[in-house]
Amino acid sequence: MNKLRHVISAQQLVDREFLDELFACAATLEQEDKLRVLEHPLRGRILATMFYEPSTRTRFSFEAAMQKLGGGVLTAENALDNSSASKGETIADTVRVVSGYADAIVLRHPQVGTAEIAAAASPVPIINAGDGAGEHPTQALIDVYTIHRELGRLEDLNIALVGDLRNGRTIHSLLPFLCRAPGISLTLISPPQLRLPGKYIQMLQAADTRFAETTRLARVQPADVVYVTRVQRERFDSEAEYEAVKDSYRIDLHVADSLKPQSIILHALPRTTEISPEVDQDARAAYFRQARNGLYVRMALLRYLLT
Amino acid sequence: MNKLRHVISAQQLVDREFLDELFACAATLEQEDKLRVLEHPLRGRILATMFYEPSTRTRFSFEAAMQKLGGGVLTAENALDNSSASKGETIADTVRVVSGYADAIVLRHPQVGTAEIAAAASPVPIINAGDGAGEHPTQALIDVYTIHRELGRLEDLNIALVGDLRNGRTIHSLLPFLCRAPGISLTLISPPQLRLPGKYIQMLQAADTRFAETTRLARVQPADVVYVTRVQRERFDSEAEYEAVKDSYRIDLHVADSLKPQSIILHALPRTTEISPEVDQDARAAYFRQARNGLYVRMALLRYLLT
Amino acid sequence: MNKLRHVISAQQLVDREFLDELFACAATLEQEDKLRVLEHPLRGRILATMFYEPSTRTRFSFEAAMQKLGGGVLTAENALDNSSASKGETIADTVRVVSGYADAIVLRHPQVGTAEIAAAASPVPIINAGDGAGEHPTQALIDVYTIHRELGRLEDLNIALVGDLRNGRTIHSLLPFLCRAPGISLTLISPPQLRLPGKYIQMLQAADTRFAETTRLARVQPADVVYVTRVQRERFDSEAEYEAVKDSYRIDLHVADSLKPQSIILHALPRTTEISPEVDQDARAAYFRQARNGLYVRMALLRYLLT
Repeated sequence: MNKLRHVISAQQLVDREFLDELFACAATLEQEDKLRVLEHPLRGRILATMFYEPSTRTRFSFEAAMQKLGGGVLTAENALDNSSASKGETIADTVRVVSGYADAIVLRHPQVGTAEIAAAASPVPIINAGDGAGEHPTQALIDVYTIHRELGRLEDLNIALVGDLRNGRTIHSLLPFLCRAPGISLTLISPPQLRLPGKYIQMLQAADTRFAETTRLARVQPADVVYVTRVQRERFDSEAEYEAVKDSYRIDLHVADSLKPQSIILHALPRTTEISPEVDQDARAAYFRQARNGLYVRMALLRYLLT
Repeated sequence: MNKLRHVISAQQLVDREFLDELFACAATLEQEDKLRVLEHPLRGRILATMFYEPSTRTRFSFEAAMQKLGGGVLTAENALDNSSASKGETIADTVRVVSGYADAIVLRHPQVGTAEIAAAASPVPIINAGDGAGEHPTQALIDVYTIHRELGRLEDLNIALVGDLRNGRTIHSLLPFLCRAPGISLTLISPPQLRLPGKYIQMLQAADTRFAETTRLARVQPADVVYVTRVQRERFDSEAEYEAVKDSYRIDLHVADSLKPQSIILHALPRTTEISPEVDQDARAAYFRQARNGLYVRMALLRYLLT
Repeated sequence: MNKLRHVISAQQLVDREFLDELFACAATLEQEDKLRVLEHPLRGRILATMFYEPSTRTRFSFEAAMQKLGGGVLTAENALDNSSASKGETIADTVRVVSGYADAIVLRHPQVGTAEIAAAASPVPIINAGDGAGEHPTQALIDVYTIHRELGRLEDLNIALVGDLRNGRTIHSLLPFLCRAPGISLTLISPPQLRLPGKYIQMLQAADTRFAETTRLARVQPADVVYVTRVQRERFDSEAEYEAVKDSYRIDLHVADSLKPQSIILHALPRTTEISPEVDQDARAAYFRQARNGLYVRMALLRYLLT
């Protein structure tokens, strides 16, 4: 595949050679960070983070990644209130101006498609850190990296996706990666109201990926990976409907104990009640490691884009 | 002229020797930046940006300038909400405290005169990044630098100022510089409601600067520099008045094509409809280069103030 | 005492050996800063400042401290609006994630006890920068350091505490330090409504610290240290009650002139009317030096926690 200029969509990132290279780099950077022997390949370079929709943790992980590689940061915690947007400027103009000050731009925006518009206007790399109901491709990259790092492979895995499969953006971004890997078997576990949308089912069918749909959480048992998403109250038509299912998709100690010893539990965080805090102590609870992997995957990505 | 301690008003900056030195420095810094051989003369120094009125791009350009020179940054994206001001502290006290942490302070504040009050209290340089309807002196510096860089001179120029000449702060800050340069001929193009105020007309007359006033945009044709400002709806008494003139001061491809090949079009940005996006591709469209020049002019200014 | 992992409460910091070491380090760092020969022992390390209640000056002083020691900064000026807290995440989870990106976390939060909860969850040092009506331990450290630096000792001092002794958080945090030092004599000067609460009176009695309570500001006269706090309108039952006392606790030139030549006036800032601006010129007015000391005390503390 050609070298990427911008990172807009998960679909751009599924190439296996690209992933292998990026993941090797992330693992090396983690090693070097822990030994405190990181080099500063991005010294003198500047990353701008423009968050039109605030997200402290995503912003922090990009900014930490840039600084650990020796670069500097321009930060707009709340770009919407503060920007020329309120004077009617287009995102294309904003990006053209900011690209005069920064070597790359991380953009989070409530509107689907904004990252693509920005990329078309920008002479420097644009990284999509979430555009509304659209994509959040670096999150998917982190999820795939975590599976690879924890289990040593991406193929021949039994993966259970649990919770709100209808609206879960992280789940949707993960699917193109899973469709590419051989020997994947998916268990789609959700309330009937929150099943995976038809277009993703078709994606799985087109890729010949094995999958089964169920409403029963007990079906997580044989999984190598249990990926949990939040079941949000506001997704249901009535409070009664929500109350009826909400506790049926909760990972507690009992559920965790039923899993295979080598399995892992993932969650893009923040979580509320869908994973019980007592599970945190279990070695299979990989979600905080997953969050930390964000640092190294983003370091690897910045290095890839800027050197 | 004596070395400046603070940068509060455009009037402080008109000295030609000062400008020549600053512009030479800015050009060198641009060269070094592009070759990635910038030195770090401000290593260990800290710049605080205090924006009581948010402006992401102005803040970014100062912060990028400081970091490219090796310095660090303290940033208050929205100082008003967050500051001791809400507890009744004076700006003088705030500046005295912050000057204990920073080697220079960039201040943007909605109230005219605030930068001057801050400067009187501060042991470290204050840079006025806009005080309400007052001044924004570094913007004027960037405009003058851009003319100099693009056309190779500040004298013997035909300059058209277009749009809202009554309220355009950037235009007003530019005039003292133009009055100082020999051989300047100004064409003031605006709707009748938005003519240049009397006190600026008198400034031109006192300096013996040639000028003509007109309502006809076609008069841009012989200009070397076309400086465009926004004609804002809220400046008119009625919607009808606004609608009657709004499209008469728009630079589109047709107007751009009528200009001399070596001319340049400037705009302090953000723009809305006053310059058509199709003009952006024209080599005469210098406004994004002008925005980028902000970086190098501010680098030169920080270097001047802090070394 | 054992090496501190977190800084949550003033009570943790009263050990005299710890203070002597920290203060010696702060003094050395100030010396090195003024000579511009600071080393960068925290190079490659990252400090996150998470302010759920904004405070530009406290945030700036921590961030300047970190940068002067060579470290980088992640900044959340307004974490409350922006964080996963709004999605129902616990502070413990937030801290676990951020500790993956940062080597230490400065936390300011409106709710008492938050810093302690954060510390229990965090693998990296938590520094409490104020938890509501609770503690702000580094401010107390700065106050004690300022007394030591200005007067050369912590013992055998006559200290007047002036103003709102009932609600003054900084006063309350200072008392454990004063109780530890031999030869301290306190004069507690306040309106009758705003006397020091009983539990602090008992603390003084238990420590055998000499003290006297009075409503008369004239009693500041023999003090070595005059520590002033704001008398806030909202603390009184009626406007009349407030008006009756507000000017009785104001340090003006007349009061300042009545003090001993070697005495010092302290205030944690921001001040409003409780110290007249004309006093600022008096050498005894130490409050801006006190603010600046914050930088060096915080540098010493970060160095202590992170090396």
